[in-house]
Amino acid sequence: MTDSYQAMSSAERAAELDRIRAEHERFRSLGLALDMTRGKPCPAQLDLSNGLLTCVGPDEVAAAGGDVRNYGGLDGIPDAKKLFADFLGVQPEEVMVGGNSSQTVMHDSILRAWLFGVPGGDGPWGRSERVRFLCPSPGYDRHFAICEHLGIEMTAVAMDGDGPRMDEVESLVSSDASIKGMWCVPRYSNPTGITYSDEVVDRLANMAAAADFRIYWDNAYAVHHLTDNPQPLKNLLDACKTAGNPERALMFGSTSKVTFAGAGVAAMAASRVNIADQLSHLGIQSIGPDKVNQLRHVRFFGDLAGIEAHMKRHAEIIRPKFGAVSGAFERQLAATGVATLSQPNGGYFFSLDCLDGTAARTVELAAEAGVKLTPAGATYPNGDDPNDRNLRLAPTLPDQAEIEQAMDVICTSVKLACLEKLAG
Amino acid sequence: MTDSYQAMSSAERAAELDRIRAEHERFRSLGLALDMTRGKPCPAQLDLSNGLLTCVGPDEVAAAGGDVRNYGGLDGIPDAKKLFADFLGVQPEEVMVGGNSSQTVMHDSILRAWLFGVPGGDGPWGRSERVRFLCPSPGYDRHFAICEHLGIEMTAVAMDGDGPRMDEVESLVSSDASIKGMWCVPRYSNPTGITYSDEVVDRLANMAAAADFRIYWDNAYAVHHLTDNPQPLKNLLDACKTAGNPERALMFGSTSKVTFAGAGVAAMAASRVNIADQLSHLGIQSIGPDKVNQLRHVRFFGDLAGIEAHMKRHAEIIRPKFGAVSGAFERQLAATGVATLSQPNGGYFFSLDCLDGTAARTVELAAEAGVKLTPAGATYPNGDDPNDRNLRLAPTLPDQAEIEQAMDVICTSVKLACLEKLAG
Repeated sequence: MTDSYQAMSSAERAAELDRIRAEHERFRSLGLALDMTRGKPCPAQLDLSNGLLTCVGPDEVAAAGGDVRNYGGLDGIPDAKKLFADFLGVQPEEVMVGGNSSQTVMHDSILRAWLFGVPGGDGPWGRSERVRFLCPSPGYDRHFAICEHLGIEMTAVAMDGDGPRMDEVESLVSSDASIKGMWCVPRYSNPTGITYSDEVVDRLANMAAAADFRIYWDNAYAVHHLTDNPQPLKNLLDACKTAGNPERALMFGSTSKVTFAGAGVAAMAASRVNIADQLSHLGIQSIGPDKVNQLRHVRFFGDLAGIEAHMKRHAEIIRPKFGAVSGAFERQLAATGVATLSQPNGGYFFSLDCLDGTAARTVELAAEAGVKLTPAGATYPNGDDPNDRNLRLAPTLPDQAEIEQAMDVICTSVKLACLEKLAG
Repeated sequence: MTDSYQAMSSAERAAELDRIRAEHERFRSLGLALDMTRGKPCPAQLDLSNGLLTCVGPDEVAAAGGDVRNYGGLDGIPDAKKLFADFLGVQPEEVMVGGNSSQTVMHDSILRAWLFGVPGGDGPWGRSERVRFLCPSPGYDRHFAICEHLGIEMTAVAMDGDGPRMDEVESLVSSDASIKGMWCVPRYSNPTGITYSDEVVDRLANMAAAADFRIYWDNAYAVHHLTDNPQPLKNLLDACKTAGNPERALMFGSTSKVTFAGAGVAAMAASRVNIADQLSHLGIQSIGPDKVNQLRHVRFFGDLAGIEAHMKRHAEIIRPKFGAVSGAFERQLAATGVATLSQPNGGYFFSLDCLDGTAARTVELAAEAGVKLTPAGATYPNGDDPNDRNLRLAPTLPDQAEIEQAMDVICTSVKLACLEKLAG
């Protein structure tokens, strides 16, 4: 059993370094090629939705009314609006249902604010001298990439166990009108796995902020539970309405990790004012979304209960994979005292914090031993983790044996990077 | 038989006005509700592609390789790239295949130029004091709407029988570097129905222009022939390469009016440099398109010959509808000498030129008699037809009897507006 590295004598640590280095050398010799980077569902998960492929034929099209094959329906078919309204906890009038990518819906909504401004704002964000977003970190690299691409300054905010550190958020937002937005993954946050507490949601809704400040509420894992009694998540739009800031909340969801990652349906929920604003721009960009695919989802699930039942089958597939990650950590790393692993009750990721200054080296060592990890820093704005500490692990795509093998390599790499550092 | 209105005496015209007014009054009393505005396929056309709904099940997914259900494949699946390369007459490396809307692909490509510039340009168009697009007119209102939305100035250019009036185009483009773009519907142009001659294509490719000048080549009706021996269209990208301006051509196509208007597949073709530039931005906006729907199209058609055979079945359905429009015009309007009708050999529209100053009144009179027409001016930039002359007729969606009834109303409305005008 490994002991705490900090508590070891220099001699003990030197011996441990030799031992772990040999272990790492042994892994290198195996010629592994494993990948723990991708938050992608595995084939067995995708198979759960194969019924989607053929559940809409000519009869279903005819029964649906309107003609889902033809142009039109900019905000989605009524049945899909109803389904996503339930999914996101809003009224159908507060929803627009789009194409296959919530990333596109988020990106495009920010571009519209950039070019045209938002309701209640004072013009295009892009005309301001400075535009800042708050980025609870570690967070999601594709969110940060949108900001980076547009030249939006990002300010990292620490994540606590119940959400972003709100004292910090409130202080920043209330004192700087150039802060126009904030990214949030409120449930099973990517990658920390935490779910925002009611208090955090209320503080986000109530805090003083610029009139055109918007919270980009990416509820990507709204129904992606690994337990039977998930922690409730307070509805941000409701809270913002109660707080008198109804325009603050822009909420996003999709079936990308419910049905098919690349061929699901994405939606946005917000106040009617915000939805009308989005549609006024969307109507220039498109005649309407793929309504046939929306109908497929409506037929396949029926209602929110159908989605929830479906997600239990996902959980059955991926729960053992999450267990393999936790188990390996407990057996191989916990006692060293130099790393902590998140304990997600849902979502797609683990967050692994190593000894400060060793994350990049850990990724390098793992790569040498044939295990691909998300680049260190990716979970921070501009790819810069100031502590060089955080790693994101994605266990859904590889199979069970691959995860176990990859975790052996990862634990060894964490230990080796740490021991090198401590010997340094 | 009606005679030429211009040749009539005042008394004859007064009598004709009384007669036509009574005819119009009779139509008003019928309580019609017909719509000739929408360039939408009719249900029988959509039915041709019902096989698309179920042609991809789990077996086809498995056979396709990769996993079309999962994330990735930003530029489309290889088989779809091949199909659209043939469709647009380019190499697969010169194609990106996207989602359901070519309008979105065009819109987004202009937004990227606006925000980030284009290869070989000197920065974002949006930072220039002035950005102009040439708009061959009459043209497509949704093209013009994109420009209007962004604040791009539009300059109408006259359309001749073989394309835009090139003397005018060359003179404008060569003398003003603020002209960054030009809209073209090169085959069965919306709404005039003309196809660009080889000479026009060559002149577009060769003319002197700003380095970041781009031609938005919306080949929306690439395969939408009504005759068996369609006029060939020279490939713009080839011509631009030959002319040493390979970056000038951005070509767009889709299956919106081939399979399902709302659930087809859209693609862009351009030089590799331009495609790489597009993908560098698209990767921020999306993880990838709906590849399952791309696979459906690949399976449904097989190859370009499959698309061409399919389009012959479309032609069989809509040819009589086009004939009904032409026939009514010949019987009721041609002899008056106050209106001319286009003679499209493909596409989705007729262009009807009335006596100057009577188009808006014609739309009003038709509406009073229960026939909805596209607003006068819609075919010109900013909705402003300087001659108040042009009307667009869309005959695909209504059924045969409706078209015939609508054309009776339209011909009467054209005549009435004209006679009112001549009566002063």
